[in-house]
Amino acid sequence: MLSNVDRTLVDDLTGGPSYAQRRALAKIITLLESTRLDHRHRADDVLNTLLPKTGNSFRLGISGVPGVGKSTLIETLGLYLIEQGHRVAVLAIDPSSSLSGGSILGDKTRMERLSVLDNAFIRPSPSSGTLGGVAEKTREAMLVAEAAGFDVIIVETVGVGQSEIAVAGMTDLFLLLQLPNAGDDLQAIKKGVMELADLIVINKADIDMDAAMRAQLFISSSLRLLGFQGNPDHASHDQAFWHPTVMTMSALQGQGIPELWEKICHFQTIQQANGQLQSRRQQQSGAWMWDRIDAGLKNAFRNHPEVQKLLPSFIAQVNQGTMASSVAARRLLEAMGHEFF
Amino acid sequence: MLSNVDRTLVDDLTGGPSYAQRRALAKIITLLESTRLDHRHRADDVLNTLLPKTGNSFRLGISGVPGVGKSTLIETLGLYLIEQGHRVAVLAIDPSSSLSGGSILGDKTRMERLSVLDNAFIRPSPSSGTLGGVAEKTREAMLVAEAAGFDVIIVETVGVGQSEIAVAGMTDLFLLLQLPNAGDDLQAIKKGVMELADLIVINKADIDMDAAMRAQLFISSSLRLLGFQGNPDHASHDQAFWHPTVMTMSALQGQGIPELWEKICHFQTIQQANGQLQSRRQQQSGAWMWDRIDAGLKNAFRNHPEVQKLLPSFIAQVNQGTMASSVAARRLLEAMGHEFF
Repeated sequence: MLSNVDRTLVDDLTGGPSYAQRRALAKIITLLESTRLDHRHRADDVLNTLLPKTGNSFRLGISGVPGVGKSTLIETLGLYLIEQGHRVAVLAIDPSSSLSGGSILGDKTRMERLSVLDNAFIRPSPSSGTLGGVAEKTREAMLVAEAAGFDVIIVETVGVGQSEIAVAGMTDLFLLLQLPNAGDDLQAIKKGVMELADLIVINKADIDMDAAMRAQLFISSSLRLLGFQGNPDHASHDQAFWHPTVMTMSALQGQGIPELWEKICHFQTIQQANGQLQSRRQQQSGAWMWDRIDAGLKNAFRNHPEVQKLLPSFIAQVNQGTMASSVAARRLLEAMGHEFF
Repeated sequence: MLSNVDRTLVDDLTGGPSYAQRRALAKIITLLESTRLDHRHRADDVLNTLLPKTGNSFRLGISGVPGVGKSTLIETLGLYLIEQGHRVAVLAIDPSSSLSGGSILGDKTRMERLSVLDNAFIRPSPSSGTLGGVAEKTREAMLVAEAAGFDVIIVETVGVGQSEIAVAGMTDLFLLLQLPNAGDDLQAIKKGVMELADLIVINKADIDMDAAMRAQLFISSSLRLLGFQGNPDHASHDQAFWHPTVMTMSALQGQGIPELWEKICHFQTIQQANGQLQSRRQQQSGAWMWDRIDAGLKNAFRNHPEVQKLLPSFIAQVNQGTMASSVAARRLLEAMGHEFF
């Protein structure tokens, strides 16, 4: 099934020396990110070959607004983990890259000390051009990094858009990094990410300890007032075993990293023991499949020749109020050959 | 294009006496709600015929959690408006009806005094069975009620799920009814509905005026802290012309109804004068078309014979971890004949 080239890539990735592994990992991710149909099929075969070797990492999602100190936290935590014998891969989902055409996240120069280590792998967010959203490739890249033996995968995103839901939907623990300021808290509540968080960390506590304590209090009482039930669509918590903890720290000063890691491991131990981790991952795989189907259906629609022919005039008629929106929708779908609605 | 039966319905609706109008309106809505393909095509033709007569109402969206007093407010406001010479239609979107198979909203018995008036039309939420969500039919029903000359259409929903976004996306003014209690406020912020609101009304202020004042203060400062920019996807405000007002009232005691209506009319006058209303409705029509396309694509997928054949085994393989989610998605889409991703 695999070509010789791909077989070598897979062998390097799963059994080669460290430098060959990292090179193979980078090459396979590039293959995943390609939009060429033949690359796509090769990537699918590689992915299916690697699948039995995936799943053996701790998948850690980290989000927070720009300036909250994600890079500093990830670098400090990454260095600490490698010192403890772990192998750490850092992947990024940048919701803006598909718009700006460039990546604002995952830049290796941001994590200078981490990026030079043998046991670290840092991959910037894919550039624009990949259909179906950047998150698609990140989840697949995570699987490939697992097959390469990285046992801690950190997926980071910036606190805007739908990317946080994507990250929470592909990780074992979703950590929300907050600034000690009230507007930040409300934003997180507003966007519904507070309820996705397994762990809320108020960073930069050294700058204003009073504000950090106030934030901790506000978030804790908000979570209580929100009844903590969250959105049933994204519910990742079983309240019986874990109440999201709110803690303060200062990543820049390296304060609190061992305590943070201990808290994270405690959570993982519990959810491993009671079966929550397995069901969480299973639920995530299912949801991910539906997400991909959704994106694929939209692409199929946009690329259908009949749709492309009719769409501009239909949009104009809907805008002018000479065709009802629902009638336009049905006629476009009929033009695709769909009669089932 | 129209059959004789449908022509008569349209004539009754647009030119008949009041009782014939209301009967035609009910019949056309039933036709809209039918899932039979021939009914669907008839409904499309009726809708397109009526389209030039639509758009001449004030579309008012009202949402709030169960128990906040929506029915009381709508009945009191409706009676007041009919007294002023308006014709009022009340439609409901019940996000739970597709699950429970029944309707919890729009029950005529809830609005006993309003429902018996000639110039009122109250339609319960459609029961389950309509593909593509209950909101689809509500928007179409709104257009038909407009063609029948109802000049105030109230679309109500209960404060759960995606239904609030749907209501905000089909009305000229979205009114969020709140209880004077902090958990309620946070829920609204969390679900992102606070930012959709053009007007926030704290009801039942008579019960605890202190709590109502505190809620008003908290919501006002939250809106300020949130920067008020809202979600660009759902932005319905141009800050330059309108800052969402937070007011208190007591619908049960009939307090504040004229003031509320004055506030509502003030908003409408401004957005009519500066062109915002037109662009809001245009944007809503476009968004609605895409929403319908989305729902139709999903139905087409679920109903495709090849998909139905493969899906159960693919879901099982994804759950067992023997097939990658993204590979499963692509193969299902290929089975449908889509190659564009």
